[in-house]
Amino acid sequence: MALIVQKYGGTSVGNPERIAAVARRVQHTHAAGHQVVVVVSAMSGETNRLTTLARSVHPEPPLRELDVLLATGEQVTIALLSMALAKLGCAACSYTGSQVRILTDAAHSKARILEIEQAQVAADLNAGRIVVIAGFQGIDTNQNITTLGRGGSDTTAVAMAAALQADECQIFTDVDGVYTTDPRMVPQARRLTRITCEEMLELASSGSKVLQIRSVEFAHKFRVPLRVLSSFSDTGDGTLITFEESPVETARIAGIAFNRDEAKLTVQGVPDQPGVAHRILGPIGEANVEVDMIVQNTAHDGTTDFTFTVHRGDYAKAHNILQNTAQQLSARQVSGDDQIVKISLVGVGMRSHAGIASQMFAALAAENINIQMISTSEIKISVVMEEKYTELAVRTLHTAFGLDIDTQPQEEKTCRT
Amino acid sequence: MALIVQKYGGTSVGNPERIAAVARRVQHTHAAGHQVVVVVSAMSGETNRLTTLARSVHPEPPLRELDVLLATGEQVTIALLSMALAKLGCAACSYTGSQVRILTDAAHSKARILEIEQAQVAADLNAGRIVVIAGFQGIDTNQNITTLGRGGSDTTAVAMAAALQADECQIFTDVDGVYTTDPRMVPQARRLTRITCEEMLELASSGSKVLQIRSVEFAHKFRVPLRVLSSFSDTGDGTLITFEESPVETARIAGIAFNRDEAKLTVQGVPDQPGVAHRILGPIGEANVEVDMIVQNTAHDGTTDFTFTVHRGDYAKAHNILQNTAQQLSARQVSGDDQIVKISLVGVGMRSHAGIASQMFAALAAENINIQMISTSEIKISVVMEEKYTELAVRTLHTAFGLDIDTQPQEEKTCRT
Repeated sequence: MALIVQKYGGTSVGNPERIAAVARRVQHTHAAGHQVVVVVSAMSGETNRLTTLARSVHPEPPLRELDVLLATGEQVTIALLSMALAKLGCAACSYTGSQVRILTDAAHSKARILEIEQAQVAADLNAGRIVVIAGFQGIDTNQNITTLGRGGSDTTAVAMAAALQADECQIFTDVDGVYTTDPRMVPQARRLTRITCEEMLELASSGSKVLQIRSVEFAHKFRVPLRVLSSFSDTGDGTLITFEESPVETARIAGIAFNRDEAKLTVQGVPDQPGVAHRILGPIGEANVEVDMIVQNTAHDGTTDFTFTVHRGDYAKAHNILQNTAQQLSARQVSGDDQIVKISLVGVGMRSHAGIASQMFAALAAENINIQMISTSEIKISVVMEEKYTELAVRTLHTAFGLDIDTQPQEEKTCRT
Repeated sequence: MALIVQKYGGTSVGNPERIAAVARRVQHTHAAGHQVVVVVSAMSGETNRLTTLARSVHPEPPLRELDVLLATGEQVTIALLSMALAKLGCAACSYTGSQVRILTDAAHSKARILEIEQAQVAADLNAGRIVVIAGFQGIDTNQNITTLGRGGSDTTAVAMAAALQADECQIFTDVDGVYTTDPRMVPQARRLTRITCEEMLELASSGSKVLQIRSVEFAHKFRVPLRVLSSFSDTGDGTLITFEESPVETARIAGIAFNRDEAKLTVQGVPDQPGVAHRILGPIGEANVEVDMIVQNTAHDGTTDFTFTVHRGDYAKAHNILQNTAQQLSARQVSGDDQIVKISLVGVGMRSHAGIASQMFAALAAENINIQMISTSEIKISVVMEEKYTELAVRTLHTAFGLDIDTQPQEEKTCRT
């Protein structure tokens, strides 16, 4: 008998029929002898409906009241799912974030979980009941309703699993696991049966949007085994995101992520002096523009080129700020490009396998793809290139690193399942 | 400076524009120097929408979960109204039933309020904030969400007013006060400026649906001055329902109520023995059929006729039960009529004015209206007649007892305002 926390997102509970399907899946797990806690999001469309209502009353609604409003979304789902479970003859009990006492800080709309009381939930589980919990919401020390922000239900599920020391936290989504890359772009993309938390974090930050980064970080911190599964198909065990190193490091590369949401900016001919990086990025940060990659080349004429990427939507804003900064710094000029793509190779295997980077560059060069920026971390290599090369580059790398579904040797496949 | 509790029903907060209008009205009261607590219902249509959702998942949803679901209705309204107040520059703070701690018993869907904590609300009021509270809902001692059932928001408002020792509890509805009778039937019907709780209770139980009986009883018990006002018009002070006797008992009759929702059943020729009433009504009560009027005439041939009224929807059911009972009691036969109306004259003035009953019967007789049943209490006389006489009888009595708007002497009008 295991204790399993299952999380179902908005699409999975989008209408009464889907809620009934989720109830059958939960019942199935429960009937197999497991204790089950279910965390659910608001029905898809509900959060938008409520936000529109709020905006029609106040263009910038006070965040405390917005949280009170949005928290009703999951409250509706927990009630309906508990009813659907009752219809199947399962004893189920729903709890809002406030009823569980998911204690958060007071940062409305992006609160962080501080503590979870698990006594009542544990008591229900021990009495054989299925516990249904509203994701995305909590309560601060003054009993104010808070919400956790985007992807908050995943965080609730992981935090609940950590508090209950659950055996597994299963995140049901509209995909059936984590793939080596986006299967819509590369039909040969292979579902990973296992991936480490670190790899998942790098994939997520590089544009693979299966899970929100915060919930993966949370799982990593509290060593909660996390599994991504499809709520729309009964086949497959999804992908297990584990905090343990793979027993045998068979794969050097876990996957390839790509991100077309960025734009590149360069300040050319900056005098190469200490403090320049700060003088360039300071005003950018103050304008609430987030910076991703940063590259600075060694100077050879007393000046240097300073390049970084921002979210594409912030391109014009950042460009304006830089014009100003460049003048102050007596830099030569500001250039930029918002038609770029960042492609990342991710895998813990890189640590012990030399030559991954050169293999990557060689594969891209063979296709005549010019690399504009390079940035590396211990388990990731990211390159920036013209956006038009996205598909070609991803497919080329996918094949070059043996990720295509048919190139996988049979014994390795077996070892992974 | 007074402390005023205002309650707005579902129609008054039915859309963002109406919520904005309520906010302006609340602001107006607050700007006049009063402390204001606002109790709101779910937006009109919302409770039906949620109930339909529940039914689509479970034909008879568990009541605990139904309460969790329905409680979201008012939670949406408190958030939106607080936002609308913020837009007007008013500091407002919303609370769910659980946040206030409106403690109820555990009878889901029809819970009764046991206790209200008023410390937080009082603190907010003293800090100059407007407090917005979700009506209709509470929490039991185990932190389960409960709802108070039909008209629950009125009860919340009155209970809140009692707990805070408010100066007045104002119930905003779609009518601008309590009338001597239904103005749609009698254009001469007059709005009462004052009415006693007892009169209001009798009017309510006789079919005048301005307020739910429970909230009036509550107001009576805790001596909360209750005022009925229109949320759609700015004119008029509505009707004050007071626990005090009118200083001068100018009016003998407060109003005329009528109820076309009843049906009449008679067991004819019942042996006139002790215990017969119980043997007839026992099985009716066990079948959950509520009985209103009961009349038994003196026997003169060793048998008696036993007549009572039930809700029209229960007529067939009650008739079937009676057939059975009649056989057991060797009664002669069962007869009935579901095309009747009950008309009631209500007024504390009856206590000190003799002859009201005979004046009533005379007025009806003059119109050739046959009276089928009569039942009296200290401040009410009810008669049952064929339904087709409803309008004629109500208008006749309205005129006969000087209730028509033009027959009201000028000085009396003045004294009432």
